[in-house]
Amino acid sequence: MLALVYDGNAANCTDYPTPKLAEGEALVAVRLAGICRTDLEIVKGYMNFRGVMGHEFVGVVKDGPLKWKHKRVAAEINCVCGQCDMCQADLPNHCRNRTVLGIAGRDGVFAQYVSVPVANLHEIPASISDIEAVFIEPLAAALQILRQVKIAPSDRVVVLGDGRLGQLISRVLKSQTDELLLVGKHASKLELAQKQGIRAVSVSEFTASGSADIVVDATGSPGGLKLAIQTVRPRGTIILKSTFADAKDLNLAPLVIDEITLVGSRCGYFPDAIRALAGSDEAVGKIDVSDLVTARFPLSDGLAALDAAGDPNALKVVLD
Amino acid sequence: MLALVYDGNAANCTDYPTPKLAEGEALVAVRLAGICRTDLEIVKGYMNFRGVMGHEFVGVVKDGPLKWKHKRVAAEINCVCGQCDMCQADLPNHCRNRTVLGIAGRDGVFAQYVSVPVANLHEIPASISDIEAVFIEPLAAALQILRQVKIAPSDRVVVLGDGRLGQLISRVLKSQTDELLLVGKHASKLELAQKQGIRAVSVSEFTASGSADIVVDATGSPGGLKLAIQTVRPRGTIILKSTFADAKDLNLAPLVIDEITLVGSRCGYFPDAIRALAGSDEAVGKIDVSDLVTARFPLSDGLAALDAAGDPNALKVVLD
Repeated sequence: MLALVYDGNAANCTDYPTPKLAEGEALVAVRLAGICRTDLEIVKGYMNFRGVMGHEFVGVVKDGPLKWKHKRVAAEINCVCGQCDMCQADLPNHCRNRTVLGIAGRDGVFAQYVSVPVANLHEIPASISDIEAVFIEPLAAALQILRQVKIAPSDRVVVLGDGRLGQLISRVLKSQTDELLLVGKHASKLELAQKQGIRAVSVSEFTASGSADIVVDATGSPGGLKLAIQTVRPRGTIILKSTFADAKDLNLAPLVIDEITLVGSRCGYFPDAIRALAGSDEAVGKIDVSDLVTARFPLSDGLAALDAAGDPNALKVVLD
Repeated sequence: MLALVYDGNAANCTDYPTPKLAEGEALVAVRLAGICRTDLEIVKGYMNFRGVMGHEFVGVVKDGPLKWKHKRVAAEINCVCGQCDMCQADLPNHCRNRTVLGIAGRDGVFAQYVSVPVANLHEIPASISDIEAVFIEPLAAALQILRQVKIAPSDRVVVLGDGRLGQLISRVLKSQTDELLLVGKHASKLELAQKQGIRAVSVSEFTASGSADIVVDATGSPGGLKLAIQTVRPRGTIILKSTFADAKDLNLAPLVIDEITLVGSRCGYFPDAIRALAGSDEAVGKIDVSDLVTARFPLSDGLAALDAAGDPNALKVVLD
């Protein structure tokens, strides 16, 4: 089969063995897949990953248990042991022995086929289009914030970062607070948020005044956490989504002096995102994502797609 | 009057003008004062402070409102405006315009007299001795953890740091969990904790296994946060008491990947500490502190006292 593979030196579109159906797994024919910042980091060596890249996707079950056959699905990216202390504590996303689709120890979805544990499958309702379904994984990560932090309608919430994840987070948080502000670097992306009714300003016009109740760092850039610390009020909360915080230039003393709470946030729960895309979650409302697709490429143009996703003005780039 | 003053270059025991009674303040004759790590940092330039050092004390009101005269008191160290957003939000310890006794913009307590706002005074019940009362401020800081984080009896809690604050925190947390471990560097300090029924081990024999539910960094040393990140489990909580975390060598990605919550923690509420010293708080029990005093010096030997407090084997050094 055709696959986009990272071999430790470079990503290549190449012929790759079609996965064999394993015990407890399903073979899924990938329809669409999304490129995420993590994929771009993997090409730089992040997680020391080797193999088929990619983890955001929608597909159709080709082989596996009868009840799943021909179902349109997305799949949780963390493949877990079910035995360790984290699994037993109902925190499977933190399984000590996990492999992660296209990120750690397991081939991903930038391919014609992917094998995933049946337990990871979620059927996608007909009301959600393929292109929307590609957003289930990142939208679940955005919605994870609501599981971790209570947000009141009067809370002043600042989202730092107007990229893929910052856009999704803003759309989610817009349903929770009347005092949302998105801070970004790219006029076109800020405009996109504004079209969704989100107040959005350029970081060059933004003054961090230490008065926000909640700040989300979704910059994916080294300076994000520093700006978040300057933006949040004493006793406020920073939600850290960016794994690329540069600690070298960081003074952590304000976290103590101002008694700030820093909450690391990663993967979410797929059913949350499926409900939000279907518009069946009353608290969040229907989350619109279709305007976030910048470009579609065939899998055979995977390298061009990675390039396009790396463009500062790009949002979601999809592989067909 | 005699006072221990930091002039920007060095600390000196020197003659200093006795404070004049100001509107809304009380003049307190200092009986005993404690030396804290912050005082040792101030001598190195921390907070860019100039003036009379010190903030932990017990004294007797010499002049001020009639109802306070001759009362034995401790005083909150944050002197606040009452007007700013933090004061209005009932977070006076985070007042935007605060001065802090012996730390920021206001003379402290290593002196014969100190002037403090009447609103900061707390009368000390007869059941608390002078030497115990010196611990009100740091014990309040330890008890602050209970206001910020819920701890279950089965939670595995690790306190890093066997110094003054680590000892107090351990004594407080012992009342909350059956699974407490103190990790420190000094045999004598670990033994002191063990005498209080606290499990305590040397850091050289401690293996950080990423399994603790809650970790408190009270090391006051640059490597503490790094060890805390290695010690806490995914989805666990780190309470950061140490303002001296060295970010240079720190990888913050695990905070996101493991969805760790980091809670900065500083000053507490004096009534909490007064209750705990008096043994009138059922949830915490009576906190014993008298064994934590390493040495007493007269104020005139303030420099020797600072030296003694800086000794790695010292716990609380008190000025008489």
